[in-house]
Amino acid sequence: MESLPPIDPKYHIQTQPLNPPPRLLLGPGPSNAHPRVLQALAMPLVGHLDPQFIHLMNEIQDLLRYAWQTRNPLTIPVSGTGSAAMEATLANLVEPGDVVLVGVNGYFGERLVDMAGRYGAKVKRLEKPWGEVFTLQELKQAIEQEKPAILALVHAETSTGARQPLEGIAELCRKHDCLLLVDTVTSLGGVPLFIDAWGIDAAYSGSQKCLSCPPGIAPLTFNERAADKLHRRKQKVANWYLDLTLVSRYWGSERTYHHTAPISMNYAFREALRLVAEEGLQARWQRHQENAERLWEGLEALGLQCHVPESLRLPSLTTVRIPEGVDGKKVAQFLLSEFNIEIAGGLGQLAGKVWRIGLMGYNSRKENVALLLHALKEALQHLKA
Amino acid sequence: MESLPPIDPKYHIQTQPLNPPPRLLLGPGPSNAHPRVLQALAMPLVGHLDPQFIHLMNEIQDLLRYAWQTRNPLTIPVSGTGSAAMEATLANLVEPGDVVLVGVNGYFGERLVDMAGRYGAKVKRLEKPWGEVFTLQELKQAIEQEKPAILALVHAETSTGARQPLEGIAELCRKHDCLLLVDTVTSLGGVPLFIDAWGIDAAYSGSQKCLSCPPGIAPLTFNERAADKLHRRKQKVANWYLDLTLVSRYWGSERTYHHTAPISMNYAFREALRLVAEEGLQARWQRHQENAERLWEGLEALGLQCHVPESLRLPSLTTVRIPEGVDGKKVAQFLLSEFNIEIAGGLGQLAGKVWRIGLMGYNSRKENVALLLHALKEALQHLKA
Repeated sequence: MESLPPIDPKYHIQTQPLNPPPRLLLGPGPSNAHPRVLQALAMPLVGHLDPQFIHLMNEIQDLLRYAWQTRNPLTIPVSGTGSAAMEATLANLVEPGDVVLVGVNGYFGERLVDMAGRYGAKVKRLEKPWGEVFTLQELKQAIEQEKPAILALVHAETSTGARQPLEGIAELCRKHDCLLLVDTVTSLGGVPLFIDAWGIDAAYSGSQKCLSCPPGIAPLTFNERAADKLHRRKQKVANWYLDLTLVSRYWGSERTYHHTAPISMNYAFREALRLVAEEGLQARWQRHQENAERLWEGLEALGLQCHVPESLRLPSLTTVRIPEGVDGKKVAQFLLSEFNIEIAGGLGQLAGKVWRIGLMGYNSRKENVALLLHALKEALQHLKA
Repeated sequence: MESLPPIDPKYHIQTQPLNPPPRLLLGPGPSNAHPRVLQALAMPLVGHLDPQFIHLMNEIQDLLRYAWQTRNPLTIPVSGTGSAAMEATLANLVEPGDVVLVGVNGYFGERLVDMAGRYGAKVKRLEKPWGEVFTLQELKQAIEQEKPAILALVHAETSTGARQPLEGIAELCRKHDCLLLVDTVTSLGGVPLFIDAWGIDAAYSGSQKCLSCPPGIAPLTFNERAADKLHRRKQKVANWYLDLTLVSRYWGSERTYHHTAPISMNYAFREALRLVAEEGLQARWQRHQENAERLWEGLEALGLQCHVPESLRLPSLTTVRIPEGVDGKKVAQFLLSEFNIEIAGGLGQLAGKVWRIGLMGYNSRKENVALLLHALKEALQHLKA
């Protein structure tokens, strides 16, 4: 070996063993991981082509199909966080020049616009104030006007707490030869969602919301119409890591090596999806709804107002208006420092105007609602005094 | 809520608790995670903007700078596997029309070619048979001929086991106003590597090789010359998730939300880097070298031949020629089924010709060498008989 330079000791720092504070994560995500998910995460590794891992991949795909209520063969987790699954969906479906119509009524609609533009889409924005949703009539008109190849909507806008009703939109899209692409990051596993019955062509989600798995793996699903568009592409997908023509050969019967799958995150994701299957979708959706209603009643009793009308409110994420004269940031800091509870403020149009409170997956529990309401009451009293 | 469709029970499958077999991962990666890394992985989550997490992010950056021997401010982990860090490096540095000269002497050189092409590079290939490396003279000639904006080389070719000497190349690149981009996936933490002293402008790596952290997080580092090229870009980075102009605002002092960081993988990565700092780079490199030499001697004693000459052999990954008349796949299967040991076969030019044996990070231990040599001997006897 050649003679080596001396070692630079500048960043040879001393650190302490990891000792995270016991946070209750009631913000927009991540939610706390279920203890069984954390256990799975810590299991010894196997290789990404090990027969045992391949068996586990098959299970993940089936459990994911159940959670999403789809029979789509192309249903897989992407090796990144929810934003990677969002980008994978766009990168694979958008070809340069495609008109992509995006419903922009929150932060994640904006992100769809940014991403679709990077893949060469002619992006058309359909806008609504943050917290509102699009009616079928508005969507119909916009589709007829813009003639998009893809309509992208956010089912559960984490930045606003609004739930976009999806029934009927697919028929509209099919009539106009357009794909329906849906962001289900904050709905999968917590809010009623039927990929096949609602005719959604492509959807993506995250792991760290209603599935209560740590962030770092994120699923997507394409039906036949979406897969057809992918396979008819004239150009290579402009993203190697997320190229589904390659990734799906690893997740498909060929098992061709593409990149090393995040083994431990797949362990955790499988366990999170097992918990969904054990509880059953109906029971799980009902639990989310009931605990959200408890929260909403409690907030009202504290004299607080929700930003979204109840019929469109997400059970997984509630936006609460910060009352006149209250410093929203100080309240959040008080909850964190005094009670180890994380909630978040608003983004964009709602910055400084709302708090965002998540009751997602494992965290959607009666005791968490009770604790939060108590802590919030104390914070409001303390900071007004 | 609208009336909902019935739940489709088709994929409501029964699964067993996770129970992975106790594999010893002596292939090209992942290696087994260190037990302390697995413990860190299972720690309770905090939010991605929690003050405690931000402190941990700073520690990760410093520990990474030590491991890489760099003072580059832009030294961060990407929220994906090693291939995502590879793509991030190219996506941010390549502008359409840039000439990118790639040293192709193995599988990962080929991948660099594919990725750079997707970002609009005019890719020029400098080729060598798999297992050989490039001389300074060859590189000089190619740079003078192609006048590239970027020269991309693989320091540790996981597909061949060859170590590309890097000394002197940076001077050549600077003289010709070219950036030196280096793949250090299988060298970081196991093979002598000096980003600053060797003048490497941009590098990336993985977590699951010599750092013994599970796959799912992957670092990169850019020096000032590389960061300058990034900041002088005329077009947006054609990849939202990996856009360092956005990601670096989350890792920088602004802490602007970009995507939800993979919290648990960051916990694990920090612990893996702490282990590097505790052991010290010099001791760690020496351990890898000594155990590799033990392996090479043992292989020779079994009558086996290494594919790469000893002076260029990676201590982290050894390619061993499969002897005439031996079914390489059967040997690997025997090791897995009889001894729970994973090794791998060759790729591309070396498919069917070599085994790949990794001694990486936590797995680079005397007892693992002894066990593998014993098992390999038994496999060869058993399968010849």
